[in-house]
Formats: sequence, structure tokens, C-alpha cells
Amino acid sequence: MTSPASPAYRRLSVDERRQQLLDAAQTLFAHRAPEDVSLDDVAEAAGVSRPLVYRYFQGGKQQLYEAALRSSADALVDCLTEPPAGPPTERLARVLDRYLAFVSDHGAGFAALLRGGSVAETSRTDAIVDEVRRAAAGQILFHLGVERPGPRFGMMVRTWIAAVEAASLIWLDEGEQPPAAELRDWLVDHLVALLAATAAHDAETAAAVAKLLARERAAGPVGRLARNVVPLVNQAAHLL
Amino acid sequence: MTSPASPAYRRLSVDERRQQLLDAAQTLFAHRAPEDVSLDDVAEAAGVSRPLVYRYFQGGKQQLYEAALRSSADALVDCLTEPPAGPPTERLARVLDRYLAFVSDHGAGFAALLRGGSVAETSRTDAIVDEVRRAAAGQILFHLGVERPGPRFGMMVRTWIAAVEAASLIWLDEGEQPPAAELRDWLVDHLVALLAATAAHDAETAAAVAKLLARERAAGPVGRLARNVVPLVNQAAHLL
Repeated sequence: MTSPASPAYRRLSVDERRQQLLDAAQTLFAHRAPEDVSLDDVAEAAGVSRPLVYRYFQGGKQQLYEAALRSSADALVDCLTEPPAGPPTERLARVLDRYLAFVSDHGAGFAALLRGGSVAETSRTDAIVDEVRRAAAGQILFHLGVERPGPRFGMMVRTWIAAVEAASLIWLDEGEQPPAAELRDWLVDHLVALLAATAAHDAETAAAVAKLLARERAAGPVGRLARNVVPLVNQAAHLL
Repeated sequence: MTSPASPAYRRLSVDERRQQLLDAAQTLFAHRAPEDVSLDDVAEAAGVSRPLVYRYFQGGKQQLYEAALRSSADALVDCLTEPPAGPPTERLARVLDRYLAFVSDHGAGFAALLRGGSVAETSRTDAIVDEVRRAAAGQILFHLGVERPGPRFGMMVRTWIAAVEAASLIWLDEGEQPPAAELRDWLVDHLVALLAATAAHDAETAAAVAKLLARERAAGPVGRLARNVVPLVNQAAHLL
């Protein structure tokens, strides 16, 4: 039902119209694989004519897909930004809450993109995804106070980001189970555990862990994890 | 230089010939992206005529690629198999040694495949890669003595496998640094750390960890990691 007051018939500026089409496209890409979304679908969802969609995206569906991806990637990078206040793992927990909300909102499109092999995937779309990964790595380094990471530290951070992506895809597959808050806590613990395991082999990581521990508090994620690991260390007494 | 005694001119059985072509293809795919390998290249590398390659692989390059991938995947799954003797983390270390040797031997082809977006990628090649991942997960469950994993345990194992894949790609990118033995130790520690962090939230994981700890020895990976983590727990005394 389109009333004369509907946004499709109001006079929108070029930028507003473009954004309206991108929003409609993002919603469609969130629920279907890129190959299952046509420009007709986008026109219909936005309540505009197909020629209008083509006027804005003369490169057709691929251009619209890349523009929608660009816009989603910018939104995701915004999610990752957190002021440097309070214990670092609590900042990370807030970032992960926003990230998981984004994953949930962008479901199918997010999965299609990260799974690869989509017909809409090109070196340009890959570059956008890599840009988000680099931004995520940059944020982690920033909050851990590491300016120029050595290879070991860099590999650890990128590996954890890959683990988060994999966990997100499994989470989507399993109907968003466990609840987002549990998954978030587990992902934070995963990073802390990985930092602790890596600290033994790498002075830079050890220094970052020492700095991190000094900034954490007993009620926070590291305190919880440390209390949980102590009984395990006792169980491993025969190995010490 | 092809002498009359070269394998290309010996009379090979159908199976031998097929395997010879697959071996030549695998070597090429190991050094170049699938799109940069032609059937002419395969014929030249095997020292045979192009029509002969087509006779064996009537579906052309895509069929040859899939057959080479199938053969590599089978070889990789063989690498993952380890008898259930000795401390589990030492078994894992042996499996990872073979896995990293495989990654090193298959370099470019391995990277192209896991990175996705290759023109040769299809739902069939994806299925082969997923099969290897499932085999890897099955081996980990087998050695940890977990028969039917709950969702949390299953997610943990699949997430670690994704982390290993990501670390392998970074390792290839960085000219196989750190040395394979160091990367292997770090990947073992990563799994143990992840098991410890997950045990706090999941009874099944806690039971598997207890069983694991009982089977480990002080000189092995868990002993080393436990001794390395004790000073960190002391550093975190204000959080306990």
C-alpha cells in the first residue's frame, strides 16, 4: 500500500534517494543470498520504479550490491569504535554486543559474504571485507595499547578475529544459540585465554597482558575467568 | 627434455595415467591460483598431449581441478588420522606437524581454496572443504573422548579449526614464519587455552578437560602451558 505521502513519492534529494535505495537493498540482502535479489525486488521494496533504481545504480545489481556492502561495512566499523575508558575487556564486551546485533540484523547477507563463493563476490567486495577486518584488528591493538605489533601478536589478533567470524556463522546456523550475551562472554574469554597462552612465547604479548591485568577489576571478565581457571590449575597439579 | 623412457611415453594403466595427470595438476595448483592454470600447462607438466588430458577429464579444467582437490582432500584427511596412544596434546602436535607440512607443500592452491572467491569454486568444491573440516572436528572429538558433542563443545572445536585455517593463511603470507614447530606449539596451546576457558561455562567441556589433564604429562604441552600460566594467575591476584 503506497499512499501519496509515502517516501517513494516525496521529492527526495539525490543523496536521500540513494540512501533509501541502499536501505531497501540492505534489508533484502540481509534475508537472501545476493544472487536471489533482483533490481525489481529492490524497486518494489523501496516503492519506486525499476528505471529509477537503474538511474542511481547504472552498473546494475553488482554496483548496488557493492554500494550496500560499502554502507554496511561503514556501519560495522562504526560498531567497533569504543572510547578508551574502563577495563579493556568490558569495552570489548560492549563492542561484541554491537557486533552480534549487527550479525543478527544482517543475517543472510553477512553469512553469504563471509562464506565466500557468492556470485556477487569480487576482488572489490573482498577488499571491503578485509578493510573491516583490519579496522577490527586496529581497535584491538588500540585498546590493548600496542602500537606496532610484532608478527606473533599480529597473528594472534587476526586469528581471534577469524575465530569470531566462524563463531558468528555457526551462531546464525544454530538459530542464534547460545543467547548473544553468552556468546559474547565466551568470545571475550577466548581472547583473554589466547593472550595468556601467547604471553608465554612472546615478550610483547606478555607486556600487553601485564598492562591489561592492571586495568581489569575483579568483577569483570578477566576476574571471572581467572577465578574459573584456578581450579583447573589445581587439577593440573601433577603437571606443574 | 623428454626421453623415450619418460613416464609420459611408458604405457600406463588408466588409473596410473589418471593419477599422473592429477599429480601434475596438484603441483601446478600448489603454485598458482586455479584461474592461472590451463589444461595446456597440465599437459606440458605431465609431458603428454592436450587431447590426452581432455580424454581423461572431459569436463575440462573444472573437472580436473575438482579431481585434484578431491585427491588433496583425501591426502589431508589421511594426515589428520593419528592412533589413540599417548597424551592427547602430543597426538595433536603430531597431526599439526603433518598438517603444516601439507599446507607448505600445497601453498597457493590451499590459500586460493580457503580464501574463497576463486573462479573454480563451486558448491562441490565447498562441500569437499567442509568434509575435511568435519573430519578434523571428528578427530578432535575422538581424541578428547567426546562422542556426541553438545552445541557449546561443537562450536568451540569448529571455531578452533577456523582459527587454525586463518593462522595457516597468515603463515603462508608471512613466508612460513614463525617456524612450523613454533606455530604448532602455539596452535596446541590455543586449543588447550580455549578448552580451559570453555570448561568454566560448560559441564561437558569441563569433563573432557578433566579427562585430558589426567592423560597428560609434565613434560608435554599442557604441563608447559600450565607452568607458564601460573605466573599470570599470580599477576592477576588482585582479580581473584
